[in-house]
Amino acid sequence: MKFELNDAISVLERTPATLQTLLQDLTMAWTHQNEGNDSWSPFDVLGHLIHGEKTDWMVRTEIILSDKPNKAFEPFDRFAQFQNSKGKTLTALLAEFKTLRTDNLSLLRSKNIAAKDLERTGVHPEFGPVTLSQLLSAWVVHDLGHIAQISRVMAKQYKEAVGPWPKYLTILNHTPSE
Amino acid sequence: MKFELNDAISVLERTPATLQTLLQDLTMAWTHQNEGNDSWSPFDVLGHLIHGEKTDWMVRTEIILSDKPNKAFEPFDRFAQFQNSKGKTLTALLAEFKTLRTDNLSLLRSKNIAAKDLERTGVHPEFGPVTLSQLLSAWVVHDLGHIAQISRVMAKQYKEAVGPWPKYLTILNHTPSE
Repeated sequence: MKFELNDAISVLERTPATLQTLLQDLTMAWTHQNEGNDSWSPFDVLGHLIHGEKTDWMVRTEIILSDKPNKAFEPFDRFAQFQNSKGKTLTALLAEFKTLRTDNLSLLRSKNIAAKDLERTGVHPEFGPVTLSQLLSAWVVHDLGHIAQISRVMAKQYKEAVGPWPKYLTILNHTPSE
Repeated sequence: MKFELNDAISVLERTPATLQTLLQDLTMAWTHQNEGNDSWSPFDVLGHLIHGEKTDWMVRTEIILSDKPNKAFEPFDRFAQFQNSKGKTLTALLAEFKTLRTDNLSLLRSKNIAAKDLERTGVHPEFGPVTLSQLLSAWVVHDLGHIAQISRVMAKQYKEAVGPWPKYLTILNHTPSE
């Protein structure tokens, strides 16, 4: 599938509502438990998505579209949520994510990005030059990956409860390193 | 996490809305493409969930709770959707799933299931005796597994578009056998 800005936005704009529908008002047994060890709970993932809205996707988009000569992205802090989400409720995080995403997509639309802009580049701290279309595609995939992760972490809470069923419920049997 | 009927229902009742939020009005490039070979598209998965509502979860629950001596479950047809979904739109499938799930959860609630009922058993064609709580837990995990699968299949459509990012977007790198 070739990148098209409208296709990307149509997924990005629905993620807050998808997570709200999936998680709002569930008990903490569903939302605050992880897959063991230092894995993340749905609550942790939501904090990570919020930090991405604040420091990653649109910040990097602006760097790519700016006229400044320095196109280097700051490294992304994958663990900021453990400090930032402290003392907050899941409901508060869902609302915060929705506001940030709405604002970021308004900003994205305001850029009137043309086909040639999608080929402009920034410098990723590890990958080197990446194009705007690669960055925006990664934003979409990042959302979908974390929706899948949240579903998997919730499913894992019933790993024992299903008795013999893990054979046909393969989501119970793997823990990718995210 | 120990099985509790209310916890299970609180997840089961939101799946139709979650899928509607995730999929409704997206282009067919997002909803009708799969992960290659004979893997399933989001549209195929939705048909599979519908078939489960019609022939699996509550049908088996009724067998377990019935007074009939024969507690054998019929094998579940994992490929019925390829015939049954033909000519239907995604919007129609989303609506059908929502209606079937609502009706099934009304039926489930009407059973006034007590703690001792959760230990009653039916006979799975492959596993042998399974308890009602195992069956209902499997229903929940089955939903969550397919939400994760749909997210993954959508993400895969941008596998090339993200350029170097698959290293940190691990959802792009695996295809479990569902």
